[in-house]
Amino acid sequence: MNHNMHEQQPLRQTIYYGTFIHTPTPTTLSVLEKTSIGVSSTGTIIFIEPLSPTDAASKHSWSTYTTTRTPSSTSFFFPGLIDTHTHASQYPNVGLFGSSTLLSWLETYTFPLESSYTSLARARTVYRRVVARTLSHGTTCAAYYATIHVPSTNLLADICHSRGQRALIGRVCMDRMSPEHYRDESPATALQHTKDVTAHIRALDPEGALIRPIVTPRFAPSCTSACLSTLSSYAESEDLWTQTHISENSSEIELVRSLFPGSPNYAGVYDCFDLLTPKTILAHAVHLTPEEVRLIAARGSKVSHCPVSNSALTSGAAEVRTLLDAGIDVGLGTDMSGGYSASVLEVARQAMLVSRVVALRDGERGRDGEKAKLGVEEVLYLATKGGARCVGLEGVVGGFEVGMEWDAQLVSLEKVDAGSFVDGAESERFGDEQGGYDDDVLDQTAGPVDIFGWESWPDLVAKWLYGGDDRNVLKVWVRGRLVHVLGGGALRERVEND
Amino acid sequence: MNHNMHEQQPLRQTIYYGTFIHTPTPTTLSVLEKTSIGVSSTGTIIFIEPLSPTDAASKHSWSTYTTTRTPSSTSFFFPGLIDTHTHASQYPNVGLFGSSTLLSWLETYTFPLESSYTSLARARTVYRRVVARTLSHGTTCAAYYATIHVPSTNLLADICHSRGQRALIGRVCMDRMSPEHYRDESPATALQHTKDVTAHIRALDPEGALIRPIVTPRFAPSCTSACLSTLSSYAESEDLWTQTHISENSSEIELVRSLFPGSPNYAGVYDCFDLLTPKTILAHAVHLTPEEVRLIAARGSKVSHCPVSNSALTSGAAEVRTLLDAGIDVGLGTDMSGGYSASVLEVARQAMLVSRVVALRDGERGRDGEKAKLGVEEVLYLATKGGARCVGLEGVVGGFEVGMEWDAQLVSLEKVDAGSFVDGAESERFGDEQGGYDDDVLDQTAGPVDIFGWESWPDLVAKWLYGGDDRNVLKVWVRGRLVHVLGGGALRERVEND
Repeated sequence: MNHNMHEQQPLRQTIYYGTFIHTPTPTTLSVLEKTSIGVSSTGTIIFIEPLSPTDAASKHSWSTYTTTRTPSSTSFFFPGLIDTHTHASQYPNVGLFGSSTLLSWLETYTFPLESSYTSLARARTVYRRVVARTLSHGTTCAAYYATIHVPSTNLLADICHSRGQRALIGRVCMDRMSPEHYRDESPATALQHTKDVTAHIRALDPEGALIRPIVTPRFAPSCTSACLSTLSSYAESEDLWTQTHISENSSEIELVRSLFPGSPNYAGVYDCFDLLTPKTILAHAVHLTPEEVRLIAARGSKVSHCPVSNSALTSGAAEVRTLLDAGIDVGLGTDMSGGYSASVLEVARQAMLVSRVVALRDGERGRDGEKAKLGVEEVLYLATKGGARCVGLEGVVGGFEVGMEWDAQLVSLEKVDAGSFVDGAESERFGDEQGGYDDDVLDQTAGPVDIFGWESWPDLVAKWLYGGDDRNVLKVWVRGRLVHVLGGGALRERVEND
Repeated sequence: MNHNMHEQQPLRQTIYYGTFIHTPTPTTLSVLEKTSIGVSSTGTIIFIEPLSPTDAASKHSWSTYTTTRTPSSTSFFFPGLIDTHTHASQYPNVGLFGSSTLLSWLETYTFPLESSYTSLARARTVYRRVVARTLSHGTTCAAYYATIHVPSTNLLADICHSRGQRALIGRVCMDRMSPEHYRDESPATALQHTKDVTAHIRALDPEGALIRPIVTPRFAPSCTSACLSTLSSYAESEDLWTQTHISENSSEIELVRSLFPGSPNYAGVYDCFDLLTPKTILAHAVHLTPEEVRLIAARGSKVSHCPVSNSALTSGAAEVRTLLDAGIDVGLGTDMSGGYSASVLEVARQAMLVSRVVALRDGERGRDGEKAKLGVEEVLYLATKGGARCVGLEGVVGGFEVGMEWDAQLVSLEKVDAGSFVDGAESERFGDEQGGYDDDVLDQTAGPVDIFGWESWPDLVAKWLYGGDDRNVLKVWVRGRLVHVLGGGALRERVEND
């Protein structure tokens, strides 16, 4: 693939043809077969037609275009996934947390690593890897936390821009309760360094078409009232989005209560500083009280659900159904490295499981347990269109609709060779089986999901959700640009058409 | 790889050299570096020496031998994984269960599929795939449920034998509460067909060195008292192992209560028919009462913990710590297709998370939550040595000890290129970053785990546990025979030494 693809690859208008699957609503899995989607040279979806590329082009008077087709009967286009909460800087610690919980984990694992990003060399290696990995998992947009360091945070923005991944880039602000060498000297420092990163990103991407800055007070315990207040004013004056954490863990909630005795609860702390806005992403929201849920809903703030992290760090099981019923926009977050995976698909999978933990708990408490369970369509909605609403890209990405931008992935699942897999065809003598097995029965480059041929499209999607990995992502596009091809040399050979 | 490897590959004595990691006890991760393990031509570990292959061979007067070395500083030998509970026949349904729970899932998804194994062609395709997949995930031994059909169950045994995977093969017995066309006509039928499979397996593998039959009453609701009694007598008279399910789901427990009103509880039903023995594997054990835990411990029966399935089917969270504290042997089971993955590593990962769900629940109930959490070493012990105790292979497999057989895998993790990853070496001008990214930064054939170079061996193991997949399994051996090489053509090129 070309270097610096975002700059160098000229776009041509393209017709994508085959099967398209997306979730226009939380409870709808829409499957469009034998469909052509026309994407303009600026990456916008111009038409969606149940026609062949030729007929669709003719209807829309397109004379020149490139065609990209699904390569098999078990492949489909799906919207790119949106990671609404993750810490790029913590990536090297993925999988490392022992039996710690939030506050001890921050001290033991997180602050020592984050504070090392004074090294640009370290930042470069890690951030390149994070962006490459998340793209390979089909993540077309991520809301990143970096560290307090301006140069390496700017570098993360550069890397996302260069690789063509949509991103919100957060320079972490924190002026207390972290090691002295890894802390903002004052609210003024937090503000100035946030401004520095904002300026860098605005120079890089003046329209914020791909990369946007996001104001990032780490969480209430890390920020003095003056810091929260300063950052809130700045975000409002510059019309910027804000991200922070809320109600992840019981001890953290106790800590917030002791630090802000005047506030009725955790959400109230942020609200007191006007940090609960329709442009605020709140990560976790595991232990919210009904009052807090109502407050967040009233303010229109968004929640990033991080089930992998919440399970791994023994934080708890967030009640997503309650949040959705209250009208709160919810997206999914990998929350690396509280979460152990860079894959939003893994997060969606764990969101299913965690919703079942909540269902069991509700049942034990005499409530209707069934209600809490999330369906395949729902978690995929959260991973795409729901996520888009959380990062300010509603109507722009997350689905296949005319006027949206082409942030998408080509998913392919492996079909088991069914040569002998026909009922009534078992004419081979029994006993022939004792010889003749070879390990070529598996193509491990194609990922671990096996399709036997009788599955419906919803079955295929469920199998992908529960078993899929980066090997099932053949290609990824952002704003119409090809930003990832299933890689590693030989694997690329599988991707035949383009 | 050769066809029919189990028959055709002559074994030579081999010295494995490099780093060996295993769990001699549930709380010990033992790391042996620069070590030679000598394996005889019959697959038995003869010596373990902290010496080079040459020196070790000299010390033990070995003149001819093959040497297999770990290929890098981030690879190690690990015992093969043991799947103590899985349904080979349900494999095509992996990932498909909607929001059903146990009893509705059986009716909607499971019985229709299982009943189709009258087709040997279907059985052949599916069973070949199951064995290939599980081997690719490092599973060297599995306790399988097949279906009620004798020919296809025999075929599963043949395939395991041919591919060289250790297996316990269970012909499923059930004489009530399933569709009429998928049910044993009588206890006598259940017995006769079990005998038929036993005879086939004994002809195939007279010493049971690799393949053993296991008596398999599906679960109490599926078996009349006469059926349970008949099978129990048969297992005892033939000195066979038995496997069944217990206490998976609340509705199932209610059903058992209504079907066996004379028994004090679910475990009591099996005990009444002398089915709780030291050679019994009980899958699930999610909702056991303290009395049942004591009974199972007293009888010496084993428990297969299936957290993936238990979470997916909303069955509940088994209290593994309670079982272990009672002295019960516990192993891990994928329980496909209640479970959505063929990987025991995935099960170990979910065992960590489910233990955290239990920890939170215990905390809410005023107990010491920390106690319930399982550690990395513990779940890997359950996946290896613990599993071996559950399937009657204690002292035979599950670890690296002189006298044990060589059931092992070569695990390899990808090291991130640290060329520019040295503190103080960030001499590159900032801004160079805007060009020059290419997607070759990722080798997707090497799996999703990234090692940065500063990690300890326990860190590497934790990263593998949380993020590893079949791409990290370069080779798998059973009884000294090579039974899997990371496959799919090109991927195999990565495996250089042998």
